[in-house]
Amino acid sequence: MMSRNAGLLAEDPVRVGLAGYGYWGPNLARNVAAADRCELAVVCDRDDLSRARARSTHPHARLTADWQDLLGDPTVDAVIVALPIAAHHRFALEALRAGKHVLVEKPLATSVGECDELAEEAGRRDLVLMVGHTFEYSEPVRAVGRYLAEGELGELYYVSMRRANLGIVRSDANAMWNLAPHDVSILCSWLDAKALRVTATGAAWLQDRIEDVVFLTIEFEGGVLGHVHCSWLDPNKIREATIVGSRKMAVYDDVAPDEKIRIYDKGIERSGGEHPSMGSFEDFGRFQMLARAGDVLIPKIQMREPLAVQTAHFADCILDGSAPLTGPASGRRVVGILEAAQRSLDGGGRPEAVDADVTTTEATP
Amino acid sequence: MMSRNAGLLAEDPVRVGLAGYGYWGPNLARNVAAADRCELAVVCDRDDLSRARARSTHPHARLTADWQDLLGDPTVDAVIVALPIAAHHRFALEALRAGKHVLVEKPLATSVGECDELAEEAGRRDLVLMVGHTFEYSEPVRAVGRYLAEGELGELYYVSMRRANLGIVRSDANAMWNLAPHDVSILCSWLDAKALRVTATGAAWLQDRIEDVVFLTIEFEGGVLGHVHCSWLDPNKIREATIVGSRKMAVYDDVAPDEKIRIYDKGIERSGGEHPSMGSFEDFGRFQMLARAGDVLIPKIQMREPLAVQTAHFADCILDGSAPLTGPASGRRVVGILEAAQRSLDGGGRPEAVDADVTTTEATP
Amino acid sequence: MMSRNAGLLAEDPVRVGLAGYGYWGPNLARNVAAADRCELAVVCDRDDLSRARARSTHPHARLTADWQDLLGDPTVDAVIVALPIAAHHRFALEALRAGKHVLVEKPLATSVGECDELAEEAGRRDLVLMVGHTFEYSEPVRAVGRYLAEGELGELYYVSMRRANLGIVRSDANAMWNLAPHDVSILCSWLDAKALRVTATGAAWLQDRIEDVVFLTIEFEGGVLGHVHCSWLDPNKIREATIVGSRKMAVYDDVAPDEKIRIYDKGIERSGGEHPSMGSFEDFGRFQMLARAGDVLIPKIQMREPLAVQTAHFADCILDGSAPLTGPASGRRVVGILEAAQRSLDGGGRPEAVDADVTTTEATP
Amino acid sequence: MMSRNAGLLAEDPVRVGLAGYGYWGPNLARNVAAADRCELAVVCDRDDLSRARARSTHPHARLTADWQDLLGDPTVDAVIVALPIAAHHRFALEALRAGKHVLVEKPLATSVGECDELAEEAGRRDLVLMVGHTFEYSEPVRAVGRYLAEGELGELYYVSMRRANLGIVRSDANAMWNLAPHDVSILCSWLDAKALRVTATGAAWLQDRIEDVVFLTIEFEGGVLGHVHCSWLDPNKIREATIVGSRKMAVYDDVAPDEKIRIYDKGIERSGGEHPSMGSFEDFGRFQMLARAGDVLIPKIQMREPLAVQTAHFADCILDGSAPLTGPASGRRVVGILEAAQRSLDGGGRPEAVDADVTTTEATP
Repeated sequence: MMSRNAGLLAEDPVRVGLAGYGYWGPNLARNVAAADRCELAVVCDRDDLSRARARSTHPHARLTADWQDLLGDPTVDAVIVALPIAAHHRFALEALRAGKHVLVEKPLATSVGECDELAEEAGRRDLVLMVGHTFEYSEPVRAVGRYLAEGELGELYYVSMRRANLGIVRSDANAMWNLAPHDVSILCSWLDAKALRVTATGAAWLQDRIEDVVFLTIEFEGGVLGHVHCSWLDPNKIREATIVGSRKMAVYDDVAPDEKIRIYDKGIERSGGEHPSMGSFEDFGRFQMLARAGDVLIPKIQMREPLAVQTAHFADCILDGSAPLTGPASGRRVVGILEAAQRSLDGGGRPEAVDADVTTTEATP
Repeated sequence: MMSRNAGLLAEDPVRVGLAGYGYWGPNLARNVAAADRCELAVVCDRDDLSRARARSTHPHARLTADWQDLLGDPTVDAVIVALPIAAHHRFALEALRAGKHVLVEKPLATSVGECDELAEEAGRRDLVLMVGHTFEYSEPVRAVGRYLAEGELGELYYVSMRRANLGIVRSDANAMWNLAPHDVSILCSWLDAKALRVTATGAAWLQDRIEDVVFLTIEFEGGVLGHVHCSWLDPNKIREATIVGSRKMAVYDDVAPDEKIRIYDKGIERSGGEHPSMGSFEDFGRFQMLARAGDVLIPKIQMREPLAVQTAHFADCILDGSAPLTGPASGRRVVGILEAAQRSLDGGGRPEAVDADVTTTEATP
Repeated sequence: MMSRNAGLLAEDPVRVGLAGYGYWGPNLARNVAAADRCELAVVCDRDDLSRARARSTHPHARLTADWQDLLGDPTVDAVIVALPIAAHHRFALEALRAGKHVLVEKPLATSVGECDELAEEAGRRDLVLMVGHTFEYSEPVRAVGRYLAEGELGELYYVSMRRANLGIVRSDANAMWNLAPHDVSILCSWLDAKALRVTATGAAWLQDRIEDVVFLTIEFEGGVLGHVHCSWLDPNKIREATIVGSRKMAVYDDVAPDEKIRIYDKGIERSGGEHPSMGSFEDFGRFQMLARAGDVLIPKIQMREPLAVQTAHFADCILDGSAPLTGPASGRRVVGILEAAQRSLDGGGRPEAVDADVTTTEATP
Repeated sequence: MMSRNAGLLAEDPVRVGLAGYGYWGPNLARNVAAADRCELAVVCDRDDLSRARARSTHPHARLTADWQDLLGDPTVDAVIVALPIAAHHRFALEALRAGKHVLVEKPLATSVGECDELAEEAGRRDLVLMVGHTFEYSEPVRAVGRYLAEGELGELYYVSMRRANLGIVRSDANAMWNLAPHDVSILCSWLDAKALRVTATGAAWLQDRIEDVVFLTIEFEGGVLGHVHCSWLDPNKIREATIVGSRKMAVYDDVAPDEKIRIYDKGIERSGGEHPSMGSFEDFGRFQMLARAGDVLIPKIQMREPLAVQTAHFADCILDGSAPLTGPASGRRVVGILEAAQRSLDGGGRPEAVDADVTTTEATP
């Protein structure tokens, strides 16, 4: 797509402006600065202290407190939006309208409608719009995805995920909007099925009406169940998924220093033989199912920092005209599920249909 | 209460008849045989193989395939019902009507109505009726209960529990009725609050309409949340509870060989100071909550086999006329919550009120 | 070998007399009682309390406080010696002279000379003499042995073993004679090489001149190194071996509840390429060795209680006339290594030659 | 000590020249660059590739391939020597003679004689001479040291340490000289006792006469035993110490992501009561020692990068005239123990006296 990088020679790096240098911004800045095809051109933050920190780490980047200043900088090709969730849509939209390629921190926006508006704007202007579903760029997540795609686990039954920590407590979003976008995007990347219904329960103790803990059940077409437990009130840091298939099972533990994936050659099999009764009087209770347990494999995963892969992919999409793995359709899907989950949460756990799920196949922007 | 053990001299052991020698029965038999104040008098099972196994391990016990034979044995003081769940009510009722004290495996029955019928029968006849909420007799569970009662954890926020395993798959009950009675009874023993509402989601893959995995959320009066994840489709054996309070947090891991409880001196505290912004433009997003992490304590727990404690308690109640810790009110409470949960599960995860919760305080039978 | 079980019909179980019902005796008694081809005929212990415990668990066994009574019992075919180490030789010898087959707890005796005397006596009388190197009957130890024999790990470099615990502190032997017989017998079962030299260091804090901790290095023919750390002054129970070969490495953790063996596809390989220097001025310090890390495999091990396997094997040897896996040559080899180690310990860690090592191949007794 | 920083105003940072930018150099450079009172002035390495890497990370530092150029730079106050072990003495001596303060990577040199020569030169010129015993600046190591000093563990019995990894295999030194300086310096910082004797065994498989694995036993005055297992042929990264005292025990695991220290309220106590016999005939074998197991405490350790603490301390010593925690006496002590250990290793494990051990108390340089 020549038109996309008109004005960019293939050998020029993408000049990136970063909006927001708070908690997460420094990680993005570091990866932009280290990427071969990127350059950290501008850092924009209203907070004096944040800009001071940015200056000491990235002395070559231009600093500004003024968002319009960033938008108006003609040397900036792309903007990364690392702001509170409620600001994602507005700042991403303004950046697109200013002709910038845009990478938005997860979630893409707070409603499907907002997502559609962003996607339309990016499509009309032929700009890259990408959302920071960072874990989709992580090697263990991709490895599990390959195992699933190749049928190694058999038919997928369910995935149970936990993402917990002590803090960081946010005041602009509940634990679900803060943490679950990762799990939902991972789930969607693994499953080739539409989300049908969502049930979410949770409670708010630290702040009024901002849930600290949320339990989320997602039913997919074909019967696969996803469950996400997200919490910022937990004594331990947990990032874990148990993936249960008809042939094998896997556990993905992102906190493990080294051995992040385990493939269990385990399952339950129907049996015709005789088994111990439950203590029977009426012939109910005979076992017909037998557990089968074989080897456990811990595959070697070649680790790369997911944020580095994501940053390089953003630059590649801009420079080579390719469609992002986590483009607007992916962002919209995750937001659609979370929107339904928020309705369920507001309704005391009432099941809610996911109205607008689409496949994750991204149209070329 | 003299009348209860009329005919029993204090020094005579309770003569127990065990109904059901299937999967769990041998554990009950072993503990009855080993208990100071009990004697394993009769083992009753229709299955020839089960009786043969009972004979080789307990050569002194009388064996019978005939339930009426057991009921009619005047030397039997008490009956333990270790049969499929659907049979609990009928066999317990018949045993009570035959004048026997009764210990029923969990759950006590399958409906609150059945529980009430059993309680009434036991009350009328002044017989001990007890349910095998075995974990309420476990030292780590009691230790957590003491920490909670003493306010060591501060105000309780939530408890998240997991009980998973590869098998044993039951055909007479789903994973919730099979596994969750333990977690719900533990929760009820820890909390001094009524259960108000329940939400349950799950799915059945191995057998038609028998859920292999269930996620259960219980809301208690006062805002405490309980969550139970039960599964017989998991590569690992997990029996774990995370207990989060306002001052401290605890993790109880029953699978750990030694260190079953950890008390974390951790919490989130409100702070008035200045903290790094989220990358702010609009003043949203400032942190006001700070994580606090101190020491971790692994208290020494003196281990005793819960089933031995439960068995001894059953004998004590019969011989000393005391009220069981897990009597009919406790059994009814757990069944009431599970009944509501089953309605929720049948309704696709719809929240359901727990109609009939009462405090766990047992009336003297 | 018909003569061995003259007087025994193949279908008669071996009638076993157990000498010593202290700490370990009850485990032996339980396994003898449960074995198909054995019968627990007599339990012999001078201690009244020990005999009382034996009576309540094994009501069918005859009890005696008199060793001569046991020896003189013509219905007893075999004797198990579970006494303090210093008594092994004397009681085993007397039992052989009384015409009994003998299983001695590890170690077989306290000197090679004593071992030879026992072997000769057993050989002359055509009796089975076996030593309780129980771990040689353990499935994980056998599995590692198979991996080694099949060359799966390549050339064996070294084995590092730890056997530690808090107590049980013995007063009749130091930690090495108490614990290391297991490790040394495991090592010998894995290695097809003679032990050449031994170095042992340690110290005694709790009791005068009874070492609580010993570190033992064994050099084998061909360059393989074995190291054993044994201690009864450790906060944790540890039974672990790291087995390092030229192609792969393995860790055997006997304390792990489930996953006792891990096979690491890891190694160091010579490389001709260019690598980062050490910060060079003189061209020393260039790396020529590269680490290679692949998958980790946790093979499914079908667990059986080693003591049950050992007990069954003892009966098989008696009834079928086969040579025991852990016969006198095996016992002598372990004792020979420990004798040299004790000399080293007494000499302040001075290296000592293992005089009399022989291959583990057992001559038919 | 005014004379030391003559020519330096207190507010001027120490200008550091780093000799060696190989494997470890970049970590030193990063910490020098980040330290408040230091400035990375020059990086010196003969290797073009190493200098190129230094240039991209530290664009403000001057680069040179010529050691004499670094020594002759009058703006350089201090030199850090990060070269192969055999070069430590020569380069440190030349740097001192050129009037530079010197920090040498561990070990300080390869013989006590070399250490003395360096100490004398530094003393004569009133220059700071410090060795990079980095773990002495680590918070968990210091915390254990405080527990020991305060008598929390009672009388110290022994310390067992393991430092293992897969690689990095060195060709300029064996695994002991490469890895054990850390453990020996930690031991010396914890113990207030002279090392008397050393025994070392090991073997070389990958390279001729360069041991890949070494087992080291150190006997200290007063009976404390230290044992170090160091290996670059291990499937797992292990940095662990078990510290056993008469009252309590501790485990320090530097690889644990979070909980690096555990204090076990465990011990063995003499008992006068009656205990189960060993299966007695001769009254030997009665237990007189009882294990006592109480709580486990995992104290909160405030983590700081040890290398940052060490770097800041080096600058403080130079600017404030204070004596380094790990000065020449500390370096000499560690080298003296390793020298004796090397003699033991060369002698096939023969015990060797530590000739020249002195207390770790540093004279003011």
